[in-house]
Amino acid sequence: MIANTPQPPYYAVIFTSVRTDVDGGYEAMAQRMVELAAMQPGFLGVESAREGLGITVSYWESEAAIADWKRQAEHRVAQERGRSNWYAAYRTRVCRVEREYGVSHRSEGASR
Amino acid sequence: MIANTPQPPYYAVIFTSVRTDVDGGYEAMAQRMVELAAMQPGFLGVESAREGLGITVSYWESEAAIADWKRQAEHRVAQERGRSNWYAAYRTRVCRVEREYGVSHRSEGASR
Repeated sequence: MIANTPQPPYYAVIFTSVRTDVDGGYEAMAQRMVELAAMQPGFLGVESAREGLGITVSYWESEAAIADWKRQAEHRVAQERGRSNWYAAYRTRVCRVEREYGVSHRSEGASR
Repeated sequence: MIANTPQPPYYAVIFTSVRTDVDGGYEAMAQRMVELAAMQPGFLGVESAREGLGITVSYWESEAAIADWKRQAEHRVAQERGRSNWYAAYRTRVCRVEREYGVSHRSEGASR
């Protein structure tokens, strides 16, 4: 569940959102986007939780990989439906991960 | 609920965790840490959700502000209890936020 990311530096997209009451296939879309993201070049992992506020953090090798994912055709449709239907508010932050530490750090993550 | 952060660059600490079954005051500690963090110099905001996986993202003006918070006395005690009791696994990632966008971006955030 905790993404097994490599040694920094790499990139993170922090997507924070508040949902509307509109369903209209939201869960299926969210699951599909995780599957699609995982097939993108440069994808490193994703972590997600919702408790009122939703936070999804996806991890990427480069800013170019993030830009490619943002432009991916099916993802663009989902972004547009999100803005018009699913999200009352959201914020997307693109970050460079400088360092990390934690008890779950596995050696195969460090050597990627 | 979505943190009203200023124009980038600024810094984010992504803390991802999986809890143990041990309670022992966890919720009270978590609430206290949010209150304490908000009193630290350089604190910009915090976002948090748990759904199996817990994700807390705190935002800071500088890496120095993050280092000061990490060393804060009561926070150090909480970190130690977290490692020994509350968290089965965790990962802390320190990031530089390069850019952001979203429909919740309010003008007072941009001018801070």
